[in-house]
Amino acid sequence: MEKISLSPEAVKYALPDENADGKEVKILDEVTLQQKQLGRKIVAVQGLGFVGAVMAEVVADSTDSEGKPIYFVHGVQRPSVRSYWKVPVINKGESPIEATDPEVAEIFPRVVKEKKTLRATWHSHAFSLADIIVVDIQLDATKPVFGDAKTGYCDTGGFEKAIADLGRNIKPEALVLVETTVPPGTCQHIVKPILEKEFKARGIDIGKNPPRIAHSYERVMPGRNYVSSIRNFWRTYSGIDETSTGMAEEFLTNVLDTKEYPLYGLNNTNASELAKTFENSFRATNIALVYEWALFAEEVGINLFEVVKSIRVRPTHRNLMNPGFGVGGYCLTKDPVLANWASLNVFKRKIGLEMAVHAVDINDLMPLHSLELTKSALGGDISGKKIHLLGASYLSDVGDTRHSPSEIFWKAAVKEGATLTVHDPLVKVWPEVPGAEVEKDLFASLKDKNALIFAVGHREYLELDPEEVVRAVGKPLAIIDTQNLLDDDKIMKYLDLGCEVKGVGKGHIRTLK
Amino acid sequence: MEKISLSPEAVKYALPDENADGKEVKILDEVTLQQKQLGRKIVAVQGLGFVGAVMAEVVADSTDSEGKPIYFVHGVQRPSVRSYWKVPVINKGESPIEATDPEVAEIFPRVVKEKKTLRATWHSHAFSLADIIVVDIQLDATKPVFGDAKTGYCDTGGFEKAIADLGRNIKPEALVLVETTVPPGTCQHIVKPILEKEFKARGIDIGKNPPRIAHSYERVMPGRNYVSSIRNFWRTYSGIDETSTGMAEEFLTNVLDTKEYPLYGLNNTNASELAKTFENSFRATNIALVYEWALFAEEVGINLFEVVKSIRVRPTHRNLMNPGFGVGGYCLTKDPVLANWASLNVFKRKIGLEMAVHAVDINDLMPLHSLELTKSALGGDISGKKIHLLGASYLSDVGDTRHSPSEIFWKAAVKEGATLTVHDPLVKVWPEVPGAEVEKDLFASLKDKNALIFAVGHREYLELDPEEVVRAVGKPLAIIDTQNLLDDDKIMKYLDLGCEVKGVGKGHIRTLK
Repeated sequence: MEKISLSPEAVKYALPDENADGKEVKILDEVTLQQKQLGRKIVAVQGLGFVGAVMAEVVADSTDSEGKPIYFVHGVQRPSVRSYWKVPVINKGESPIEATDPEVAEIFPRVVKEKKTLRATWHSHAFSLADIIVVDIQLDATKPVFGDAKTGYCDTGGFEKAIADLGRNIKPEALVLVETTVPPGTCQHIVKPILEKEFKARGIDIGKNPPRIAHSYERVMPGRNYVSSIRNFWRTYSGIDETSTGMAEEFLTNVLDTKEYPLYGLNNTNASELAKTFENSFRATNIALVYEWALFAEEVGINLFEVVKSIRVRPTHRNLMNPGFGVGGYCLTKDPVLANWASLNVFKRKIGLEMAVHAVDINDLMPLHSLELTKSALGGDISGKKIHLLGASYLSDVGDTRHSPSEIFWKAAVKEGATLTVHDPLVKVWPEVPGAEVEKDLFASLKDKNALIFAVGHREYLELDPEEVVRAVGKPLAIIDTQNLLDDDKIMKYLDLGCEVKGVGKGHIRTLK
Repeated sequence: MEKISLSPEAVKYALPDENADGKEVKILDEVTLQQKQLGRKIVAVQGLGFVGAVMAEVVADSTDSEGKPIYFVHGVQRPSVRSYWKVPVINKGESPIEATDPEVAEIFPRVVKEKKTLRATWHSHAFSLADIIVVDIQLDATKPVFGDAKTGYCDTGGFEKAIADLGRNIKPEALVLVETTVPPGTCQHIVKPILEKEFKARGIDIGKNPPRIAHSYERVMPGRNYVSSIRNFWRTYSGIDETSTGMAEEFLTNVLDTKEYPLYGLNNTNASELAKTFENSFRATNIALVYEWALFAEEVGINLFEVVKSIRVRPTHRNLMNPGFGVGGYCLTKDPVLANWASLNVFKRKIGLEMAVHAVDINDLMPLHSLELTKSALGGDISGKKIHLLGASYLSDVGDTRHSPSEIFWKAAVKEGATLTVHDPLVKVWPEVPGAEVEKDLFASLKDKNALIFAVGHREYLELDPEEVVRAVGKPLAIIDTQNLLDDDKIMKYLDLGCEVKGVGKGHIRTLK
């Protein structure tokens, strides 16, 4: 039976069968030869996800001082049912990623069709042709117990297989540049031994040809500056030895805007791997701290958003976070867990990163507080109530739904017998919540609801007029503002219209009337 | 028996006796009358400590657009054995505070001798003459169990007495501006009822003359910009009612540089009181987070200072803290405890500010880690060993020893049988460590020590040459760098000289040689 990979646009792509192998290898060889004759170095990007796909186009788009392309890129995606579709989509010159940053979709046709510096493939043979392999495969943390992140772990099985695939294929002198966020210690304790083992199996003398390994983490931020957040932003890097460090530095200098955003070299891969997880743990901890103060503010009648604003005038406190719905996305929810796991398992320490991991717990549980607010606004019981979420993604003006607080809220509310619905202008499908249909007509979606959760700060929700909302619903309802989307005037209007209004960190609401 | 108050310069001042009362009242009346005739408003600053003394001189130094003084200031200090000496010292035109900021000592003679806009007094009668009373009395948190800050509490007894003193004396229409860092809720739940009670006892109709109360917290930073940190820095304020808010705004606008550093008004005193403790809890939590990563870095061979530097290039992460010796001073060690206590006791909530208070515990215990490093550098046992601390204060280039990490280290090391000594260029006496004599001759102080703790980042210690140090000691010794005062070159030199070197967050030392 033919296997099918379905794109988000619902186009069906048949996975390559066993006969496709030879043909693809031949194409790869031919393309690579042509590109080498053009003087280009060959790069393979392993994994075409949220980072890899954009990294691939950025590398393919990079030029020397005369405007000539420096690299040809093989974008390599395993032929899985879930992701194979990206290969034919990219090769049509289309973006596999839905993004609010128009540049994401602009670069693909340029590099695939015009410059011809990017081609996607599903075949590992591409690795054997590359001078540099950029590793952008997914590496997740698993949190088996909700709200107990210290039991979280990192299943490195898939990652190890992918590295072994490189070890079996790459040229001994090629650089493996790990861009995936990994548990600290990964390059030294996982990548290096695997490559050495595979090299030895191939009869390569690892004394003369030690594997070249470097690490450099991205700071990608989905949203309006998606491409910029990869290309025009500071990078930290490190190599496993001097040669690897030099190769990584040269590559990153060619590809990124290192004049405006100078590279920062750390002197071992443990350090830069730790830096990434530390950086995100810092952010996660800051958010967690705000949560307990939001509860305090709510109970004692304070608007914590105003307080945060007042504190942020201090340059040293400008990154104090606002309270909110919760923490989502792929970084802050898992990076502290990766570090904690590495501390205990890779480095066999007796202690983990307890504060960082505790922050993850606080953040994971945060959406349940908005559920509490909803319950109290609805008289204590949400069973049979119609609750409508405005926003399914994890961030304002972004369509990425990975680990979104809305998902946690939805599942918990459903358990308590509520009927959930959702609207999101940027989300087409919500794979994490099976059965959730993301509505597109905002006002139609409001009809007859009992509670409205301002879950995500999408631009569209900022402009909503209370009268129009209540008219669309058809009656007064409970309004829960988790994002400070409502100023005091709007809150007053909702109150005047007979609505019950609650807000995360907004204890002053009760004294407004 | 005559009571004596001893100044840090060891000058003896006799406390005023019962006969002094009438005379001082007369002077206060006369001075006030003269000043009013000059068109000046009268301010009383209650408490002449690290904030009050400098606030008093800043207020007395403030002028209108024509350069004329706006306020006359009565600096009021209770006639206690501990602090009375400040009154005669200030009235001589001298600063009661040892400070690296030369402006602290410059303003006192100007306002006391030249402008004659500041006079210190020990008599509460001054409060009855003031239009504005600025409250700068001390309000401490008590932490009865070291390392268990959640058992900490705030004994408001002394503060309440001082406020009652105001209630018995002030004009009903005077503004009480609380500048002391207080537990959130203090103005509303402590200051207001006390003033109302005292007003009623005086027959004042509090319906017509409700006490005027406002809150505005300082962000004073001892050090080279001491005065600026009060005068030229952002202020948040709030009033208990509209009149109080307006009076506070007018006063702060007259006294501070609010053009460059605009005032930020919050709409109730709970909010601005919470803001102060929140702001410092944020800082304390950030420091605590770094601590667990410093331990990680040490064990896995990473220089965390380099990692922090690499992360700080991100504008959103510029305030990531360095690891260090611990956290001292008067703010970060207590403000989270004040908030936690207020949550449970003033507002009777069931939960406190757990993350913030936990951060205090981590920070309080931090100096013990440097003790562990010292022990390991000395072979596990410090009994009978001579350990020398470079620095007794809590901050680089500051002479303030309140709650310094050196104190915690000292006391713990003495318990384990070590002989402790200390050098500090900026500290004359170390009241928190009875018996500690602060040495002034750096090289003489080094002789014959077994371990040297770089405890504080004073400028003087930055320039120390390893060879000179070891020569002064007379033999190789253990060097513990808690402040990243030693670069790798210096560490190498110490190692070459036969020293054992350890550093907080500096796991790379072991691979340096």
